[in-house]
Amino acid sequence: MNETLPRPRLSTIGSMRTDALLKKLLSLSAHEDITSFAVGLPNPDGFPIEETAEAAQYVLKTMGRRALQYSATEGEPELREAIAAYETSRGTPTRPEEVLIVTGSQQALDLTARAFVDPGDKILVENPTYLGAVSAFSLSRPRFEFLPADAEGLDPEGITEDMKDAKFAYVMPAFSNPTGLTISLERRKRLVERARELDLWIIEDDPYGELWYEKRPPQTIRSLAPERTLRLGTLSKILSPGMRLGYVTGDPELLDVLAELKLSADMHSPVLTQLIAARLLTTGVIEKNLPAVRKIYRDRGTFMLACLEKYMPRDAGISWTRVEGGMFIWVTLPEHIDAMKLMPEAIAAKVSYVPGAACFALGDKKNHMRLSFVTVPEERIDAGVRALAGVIARHL
Amino acid sequence: MNETLPRPRLSTIGSMRTDALLKKLLSLSAHEDITSFAVGLPNPDGFPIEETAEAAQYVLKTMGRRALQYSATEGEPELREAIAAYETSRGTPTRPEEVLIVTGSQQALDLTARAFVDPGDKILVENPTYLGAVSAFSLSRPRFEFLPADAEGLDPEGITEDMKDAKFAYVMPAFSNPTGLTISLERRKRLVERARELDLWIIEDDPYGELWYEKRPPQTIRSLAPERTLRLGTLSKILSPGMRLGYVTGDPELLDVLAELKLSADMHSPVLTQLIAARLLTTGVIEKNLPAVRKIYRDRGTFMLACLEKYMPRDAGISWTRVEGGMFIWVTLPEHIDAMKLMPEAIAAKVSYVPGAACFALGDKKNHMRLSFVTVPEERIDAGVRALAGVIARHL
Repeated sequence: MNETLPRPRLSTIGSMRTDALLKKLLSLSAHEDITSFAVGLPNPDGFPIEETAEAAQYVLKTMGRRALQYSATEGEPELREAIAAYETSRGTPTRPEEVLIVTGSQQALDLTARAFVDPGDKILVENPTYLGAVSAFSLSRPRFEFLPADAEGLDPEGITEDMKDAKFAYVMPAFSNPTGLTISLERRKRLVERARELDLWIIEDDPYGELWYEKRPPQTIRSLAPERTLRLGTLSKILSPGMRLGYVTGDPELLDVLAELKLSADMHSPVLTQLIAARLLTTGVIEKNLPAVRKIYRDRGTFMLACLEKYMPRDAGISWTRVEGGMFIWVTLPEHIDAMKLMPEAIAAKVSYVPGAACFALGDKKNHMRLSFVTVPEERIDAGVRALAGVIARHL
Repeated sequence: MNETLPRPRLSTIGSMRTDALLKKLLSLSAHEDITSFAVGLPNPDGFPIEETAEAAQYVLKTMGRRALQYSATEGEPELREAIAAYETSRGTPTRPEEVLIVTGSQQALDLTARAFVDPGDKILVENPTYLGAVSAFSLSRPRFEFLPADAEGLDPEGITEDMKDAKFAYVMPAFSNPTGLTISLERRKRLVERARELDLWIIEDDPYGELWYEKRPPQTIRSLAPERTLRLGTLSKILSPGMRLGYVTGDPELLDVLAELKLSADMHSPVLTQLIAARLLTTGVIEKNLPAVRKIYRDRGTFMLACLEKYMPRDAGISWTRVEGGMFIWVTLPEHIDAMKLMPEAIAAKVSYVPGAACFALGDKKNHMRLSFVTVPEERIDAGVRALAGVIARHL
């Protein structure tokens, strides 16, 4: 800021700034010449636009005064009921009073951190884990400790006694961001056993569970341990991220704590979008639309895997996750290759990605890339993977 | 919670609970037999419902993919431009890059507190002040200190040297919640002078400025001190609170700090509602609708003032603010009357209000009531004020 102007007197968290280098690299890759495997957007071909327009008309014509008025922090009754029914139909018994509507599941991460974490408190996360969760949690200044993992992802066998004083364990059970991995049923059960032994709370963040290619992921952690799980869901991938509607399910008394924080954070989520979403759920639009959404993800995902198979150097210590759903593939390079340092070369070759270091809560591993693909047309996936393989090959 | 269930391991702020007695009393007053002067809702007769439905159609038909997709944290360019034009047209020169869109101005309060305040930091507020601001600020655990005031409200003359280490001064300049008072131009100028002398930041929260009955309030504090003011505005009173759209205007570098916190809090505000609001601003719907909105507020406000004149006991040390805009009247009772203790009697007489103690950051004054009126029909205002006067009279 200009020296002659007053300088804001920022707080500790107001003074934190995210990685400027990463931001700059990612903004460089936002050029249309560049095939971006960096951006994790859903494919808008899956959005039910016309039905949303109809639902908006229905809501504004039949309950316009209500749709534009203040309302309850917990969320609109119709939407809480529809979400409860949706969760129940997928094997997680849920009552409407066990649902809190939030402004995207990002808000659930923020509220959860604020409700549980004082500065210095221990929380358990996978490593790598979802960047947005790390950002939200970081504002409460916790100590991050890492859940044990192997090539299949989270390995609950390695959860140690000294983890019992953690405020919670945060896990993404299906088609994880960034790894694309899914926790098996056996491991989910073992995780729940260990959580009971150590009296641990679990935050289950499941935005991608419905985006399976061939078969559904195993039953949810909340269905296995409803007494100690807060489950985070979202309409961002099955309806629209731009509507910013997510939800938390769990014990109503704990949801009251989150709701009280939400009252201070934004009072309630917009009524208009909530009522539109409730209408799209109760009239079956979302259910009917899901197979088409899954097909988009499956087609692009399997095509991307085939391209990696085709172009990546062989026998060179490069591996990637064989994803079975969702929107991310995680590439592991030989340890001497720093994916962040590779970025300028990749951008010169007209392809980009998220350097894996951004997804580690302590940024300690450099030889990974997160690739997303659902908004990239097949011919560009092919060309992009070939270009990327070429850049990597020069460093082997 | 049930003793056999795991207990959540809440943080300090997760363990804070708001006043349960007040909540219970207010929920008792939510019965349709009871004339509520407690609820601060805008009158839905002022909502442009049909035009909103048209705007929703326009947005979804012409840019549906964009309206339903993720977007930038700062807000949609059209809406930032429209807000900048709106603010500029009202005498506060504002460029689009000086506008951050938020999920209701409540979110601006939350982000501001997080950006500026560490636990124990001093902030300056009026006393009484807006309850929602106190709630949001409290989550950062500040030390509240009180801006000096007299019967006209904030009195900048009394701002002392030791206030210079405050993180900011929070003021509601026009038709304040809860007092209904407006800071005069002379006092605004003096406030700005003192702020410059002490290098103080000002948070100007102005949700009601457009709701004037006969004449506009004086020029905004941001227009007087753009270099040290963050100005909070909202579409809640001039369009719809249910859409949860507010904004912050100020130095773009400081808005970047807020935007980074917002990215963790909810990524961005819903695109659909932002584009609808932009359409309603750029097509002149909001401007055209404003006189009708003002008329609702003016008619009810002047009627309420007449009823107070008619029914309140005379020469008994009871006074109230002669409001010239907005939606609140602040009643001062003789000091021995506790407005909270009066509530059960008032509810028995079928009338309710907000006990003033809820609006004091330290809850130290008990002999006040906040009355709101814009959603109450005239015949009920008359009967309600008469009943309330009767309850008060019994305690004189």
